[in-house]
Amino acid sequence: MVEPVGNQYVVARPVYSENLFDEDHEKLHRYHKTFWDHLKLYFRCSPQRVKKTALGLFPVISWLPAYRFREWILSDIVSGINTGLVAVLQGLAFALLVNVPPGYGLYAAFFPVLVYFIFGTSRHISVGPFPVLSLMVGATVTRLVPDDSTGNDTSTNTSTIDEERVMVAASVTFLSGIFQLLLGILQFGFIVIYLSQSLISGFTTAAAVHVVVSQLKFMLQLTVPGYNVPFGIIYTLKSIFSQITETNITDLVTSLIVLLIVFVVKEINDRYKAKLPAPIPIELLVTVLAGLISYFVNFEEKFNVAVVGTLEEGFQVPIAPDVGILQKCIGDSISIAIVGFAVAFSVAKVYSVKHDYPLDGNQELIAFGLGNILGGSFKGFASSTALSRSGVQESTGGKTQIAGIISAVIVLIVIMAIGFLLAPVQKSVLASLALGNLKGMLMQFKEVGILWRKDKYDCVIWVVTFLAAVFLGLDIGLATAVAFQLLTVVIRSQIPSCTVLANVGRSNIYRNRKDYTDIYEPEGVKIFRCSSPIFFANIDFFREKLISAVGFNPMRVLRKRNKALRKIRKMLKKGELQVTPKGLICMANNIQESDEELDNNSIEELDQPTNMTDLPIQIDWSADLPPGITVPQVDIHSIILDFSSVSFLDFSAMRVLQKTLKEFIRIDIDIYIAGAHEGFLDKLERCAFFDEEIKPSIFFLTIHDAVLHILLKKDIASSPKVKLMEKDSSSDYIITLSNGLRSRECTIPTETKL
Amino acid sequence: MVEPVGNQYVVARPVYSENLFDEDHEKLHRYHKTFWDHLKLYFRCSPQRVKKTALGLFPVISWLPAYRFREWILSDIVSGINTGLVAVLQGLAFALLVNVPPGYGLYAAFFPVLVYFIFGTSRHISVGPFPVLSLMVGATVTRLVPDDSTGNDTSTNTSTIDEERVMVAASVTFLSGIFQLLLGILQFGFIVIYLSQSLISGFTTAAAVHVVVSQLKFMLQLTVPGYNVPFGIIYTLKSIFSQITETNITDLVTSLIVLLIVFVVKEINDRYKAKLPAPIPIELLVTVLAGLISYFVNFEEKFNVAVVGTLEEGFQVPIAPDVGILQKCIGDSISIAIVGFAVAFSVAKVYSVKHDYPLDGNQELIAFGLGNILGGSFKGFASSTALSRSGVQESTGGKTQIAGIISAVIVLIVIMAIGFLLAPVQKSVLASLALGNLKGMLMQFKEVGILWRKDKYDCVIWVVTFLAAVFLGLDIGLATAVAFQLLTVVIRSQIPSCTVLANVGRSNIYRNRKDYTDIYEPEGVKIFRCSSPIFFANIDFFREKLISAVGFNPMRVLRKRNKALRKIRKMLKKGELQVTPKGLICMANNIQESDEELDNNSIEELDQPTNMTDLPIQIDWSADLPPGITVPQVDIHSIILDFSSVSFLDFSAMRVLQKTLKEFIRIDIDIYIAGAHEGFLDKLERCAFFDEEIKPSIFFLTIHDAVLHILLKKDIASSPKVKLMEKDSSSDYIITLSNGLRSRECTIPTETKL
Repeated sequence: MVEPVGNQYVVARPVYSENLFDEDHEKLHRYHKTFWDHLKLYFRCSPQRVKKTALGLFPVISWLPAYRFREWILSDIVSGINTGLVAVLQGLAFALLVNVPPGYGLYAAFFPVLVYFIFGTSRHISVGPFPVLSLMVGATVTRLVPDDSTGNDTSTNTSTIDEERVMVAASVTFLSGIFQLLLGILQFGFIVIYLSQSLISGFTTAAAVHVVVSQLKFMLQLTVPGYNVPFGIIYTLKSIFSQITETNITDLVTSLIVLLIVFVVKEINDRYKAKLPAPIPIELLVTVLAGLISYFVNFEEKFNVAVVGTLEEGFQVPIAPDVGILQKCIGDSISIAIVGFAVAFSVAKVYSVKHDYPLDGNQELIAFGLGNILGGSFKGFASSTALSRSGVQESTGGKTQIAGIISAVIVLIVIMAIGFLLAPVQKSVLASLALGNLKGMLMQFKEVGILWRKDKYDCVIWVVTFLAAVFLGLDIGLATAVAFQLLTVVIRSQIPSCTVLANVGRSNIYRNRKDYTDIYEPEGVKIFRCSSPIFFANIDFFREKLISAVGFNPMRVLRKRNKALRKIRKMLKKGELQVTPKGLICMANNIQESDEELDNNSIEELDQPTNMTDLPIQIDWSADLPPGITVPQVDIHSIILDFSSVSFLDFSAMRVLQKTLKEFIRIDIDIYIAGAHEGFLDKLERCAFFDEEIKPSIFFLTIHDAVLHILLKKDIASSPKVKLMEKDSSSDYIITLSNGLRSRECTIPTETKL
Repeated sequence: MVEPVGNQYVVARPVYSENLFDEDHEKLHRYHKTFWDHLKLYFRCSPQRVKKTALGLFPVISWLPAYRFREWILSDIVSGINTGLVAVLQGLAFALLVNVPPGYGLYAAFFPVLVYFIFGTSRHISVGPFPVLSLMVGATVTRLVPDDSTGNDTSTNTSTIDEERVMVAASVTFLSGIFQLLLGILQFGFIVIYLSQSLISGFTTAAAVHVVVSQLKFMLQLTVPGYNVPFGIIYTLKSIFSQITETNITDLVTSLIVLLIVFVVKEINDRYKAKLPAPIPIELLVTVLAGLISYFVNFEEKFNVAVVGTLEEGFQVPIAPDVGILQKCIGDSISIAIVGFAVAFSVAKVYSVKHDYPLDGNQELIAFGLGNILGGSFKGFASSTALSRSGVQESTGGKTQIAGIISAVIVLIVIMAIGFLLAPVQKSVLASLALGNLKGMLMQFKEVGILWRKDKYDCVIWVVTFLAAVFLGLDIGLATAVAFQLLTVVIRSQIPSCTVLANVGRSNIYRNRKDYTDIYEPEGVKIFRCSSPIFFANIDFFREKLISAVGFNPMRVLRKRNKALRKIRKMLKKGELQVTPKGLICMANNIQESDEELDNNSIEELDQPTNMTDLPIQIDWSADLPPGITVPQVDIHSIILDFSSVSFLDFSAMRVLQKTLKEFIRIDIDIYIAGAHEGFLDKLERCAFFDEEIKPSIFFLTIHDAVLHILLKKDIASSPKVKLMEKDSSSDYIITLSNGLRSRECTIPTETKL
């Protein structure tokens, strides 16, 4: 029982090294699972496990029987109808981003929903087309089937191009579905954690910029070829501005009016959210109105605007994807698969947290994968979820994916029966509606300033992601951004703040000595703290900082001492030095300093521990040496390394650390390591870190333990020798330190010399 | 002064929260440099600085005047001659790897040495061709100028192809020189730290495998086209084995004999290193012997073997690189620039550590960059340093780059005068000599086993690097390996070992509670330690682990409590509950449990702090509640998070942490954070982490401080109320905790109810 004594921190216990602590407090022998145990566990097979996996594969089995029909069905139907109408309009609008005829957007809003109903684990997201993803598919489409550059834009030609494009979109969707399915089966759902908030924010903002640029051609009614190369956005803008005089004014005016109306009404919806019974369905109203005006004024013939045109009624027969196309779009498929999943998962997570139910990332991958495989087979394009549409589904009361099914029924009705009503709507109206949804994404620019003040790294990630995705394209941009983000983590871990600590307040608190006036540093002791993991990328930095903190390079000191020893030996041989009880006395008059040349063997010798056994006397390096012999002065006797923040140490770092510690030990400086993590010693032991020079006994529980140990040792060392000998046999910790004491025992005090 | 009391750790001081400690010990106001200060400092300009930079650009100015002529010149000359002979042979052999005529290898061994003499900072490396780099240049060469596939291999055709290849090799060398120069000027010398030992070892082993495969065609004298595509090594092997019957037996036999002799003699050199006055110059002997035999037996005509042939005497006129080629090999140039520099720097570092002189990474980049620019202009190919040749230069006594200049003179003599002597040497002999140097690199396979036992991550890095470099090619392989290595650092930081700590030995030591029997956990207190930085990739993991450690999800508890409150309010209104001095008494008989439906607004309400101000009585959640109302039982009152290993916290993590802390605080659990790093609080303050619920006073110096604080608080809370009130006004820390105490003051003890 720990008893508080007033508001006081009172502790009295033995000074603990790790070894001593282990002796006093027996450690339980726990079996730590090995790599193979984990592997076995992972592939373990039991009836329960099989059943659980099977049920997990079909979440619908769990939730459908528990459906509270009377309570939920009404709100699911209301939500489903609302979502369905939005899905139809978005499907048409986003199909323009893919560069396929609008009708194919409806397939993308239909098939994946059916699959998600059976396999999905989120209850609230609305599966279907998503602008960024549509844009990515569109980029592949225009790369593989570019606009006809010859200029003879006959209708036959257009329809051939359209057919090819539908084929490409379907194939890339199919392939990305395959990738998602594979990732799901291989349990790679965790990859989303590498997409941080700043990265997603920067990426979606860049995507919004791409959408805006790509919609310009519909709003101005210009023929712009697709560029899917790095810096393609610049080429696109150049192409648009070079033919800006050919703008179709009717389309431009319609677009601007629609944009204005949509923005204003959305603003009203936001501001009077609480007072309105339901948000005004402005997209629906605008589409109906625009359709009516266009039909009665006959925009198509009078002003030569592009309209949606007759949608193909019913479904297309399913097709096998084209292997030739598949080979050309592997890279695109991978990025589509990952982006589609990442966006859907992050939206789904918002709702799963809000309504408190579990999500399964791997199962989501499987659901989207199968959805895209089916969608691709029926000539749809890649689907994920649109934030705005999911917002509609959830806010209008959707409880489960029953609402999704209802929305699919609405889409089905449009596909099968009433598609013709949409025929006179201008494409520019659809483009403006797609832009109307981007306000939120574009507003994310504001985040840059906030992030800069709060976390420089996050801000840089945002900016790099944005610029990479805008200029290099969404796929290469995403890869670059993720690589850059990983690099920032490494850099953050890599620049440790190395500080020299000192005792503050005369108790057991050690803080940066630069921060306080009221500090106490034990004489001859340096306490050095490294506040990050140590690994290949920062071990050299760590070594440099340590050397600059102690003020000398141990290797250089060792070599100088060994050189001095060699010289003393030579001088003794020549009789230039005489051993007297008072120390070494120099006989020669003029001794030149000479830096003798060394071959390789002698350099290696210089790095060995100083060996004085053959000398008739022990040299005290801090005392006056014979003339002509100088060694650097070392004013510390102990170093304490605080490793409490060193969460790991890799093999490269371990080797350098070992070498550095040895160099210090060889010039008679005691090294202690305090606050090492659980398991740290075991790992060092396994890697043969310890030997005759570096012993596990250098590990202490805390800095204060190490400091107390050092102070006590110095106390004993400065007492008469008899006392030392007594202690030596009885207490444990002195034996291990005899190395540090040896040279001192034999010291000839400075005062008595010469 | 800290006085050791025997071998005891004795401390008595106040319990310190960070705030209290700051009050007691005044902090110095240090000015921390901002980003702009650093920028200004970096671009600061002073006469001293300009002079230092200028001297740094030409290291030769510093070391040449200090050259000790009489002492050093002899060993430099001996070393230079030895190195020069090796350089000639290696130049010829490595030129085969580049797929250019052997003579061009001599240029690569000449020009860069001159430049390095002036600009380089290492005194011991021998600049010149390096097999891996030659191979990388060779891959570019065969990609841009493939072997003539038509088969009509006339000599005119061959010479045209050779000319084009020399041009490509020179251009890619020139461009990589430009990149190195740019990197050096932009101070990017630090990039080498991302190439860890395991990565370099795996990469060079893979390079050795590539060298072996690429030399097979010379040893067997087969025509194999170059494949520089992913999995190219497989195509090459396929091509070799498909025509293995056409092997030139003479070449094969010669190769095997040469290989055998070289291996055996090298083994002898190694084993009797100490006894031999100098290593046997086996390469030289073999070349001379092979040349003589070939000349007198007339191998070329008799057995149709390929020989070195007449070397072009003298130098080629310098040429401007071909812009068309430059555009096609930007990627290759970047990887050649980086690999070349990385290898040279790591070799140079070995010697700089051994002989204790400083190296400047940026200056090395400049030196190699200029060397390659000059070399490329004179039709040489990319140079770096070969480990074996540098070994010769250093071990035969080279002291400075004067030895390098002498070796260049030897190469010059061969180029200008005696090149014709090498004409009859078989190409297969050169190939075998190149292979003879690879034993060391191939022996690195042994490291895999050692690494696996010592550090799994390092082992995986080795294997991934090796496989990627072998199968994807050296350039893509290197990029993949570096990206993978960065990922491992992230993964290591990302999987924190989260542990629940307990007091061991009744003093101030807290350890993993699973490891000891003799532990004490204060009642109702969880001490949770996260042993790694917390950032976007592991914050969710951290949250999950924390929730599983405390045993409940705070958000769920909060929602249940708020739902229960709502129900109690309703029941009070209906009169089903009555307030009595003894607590709430239930009047109704049968109350059904119903999970009422909630719209969005009410869900948000559920996440707010419980508000009991409108109720006539305060609810004690741990006591019996009226029938029909249940809330999860919470058996802890305080959580201590040990943040002493959390070296950084990014913005995403901070937001999630804030939310999590709030959820705990809202269900009346006190959260404390112990051992936070220097500057941690300031950063949180800056990011608006603190508000009315989360206060800076939750930060304590150590776990033990926090535990003592909690114990004291509980002591006071369980004492009569008067005492609490007294304390409240006098002491600082209780006020901040009134939130936690409020509900407890109003508790109706469980025993007195019903």
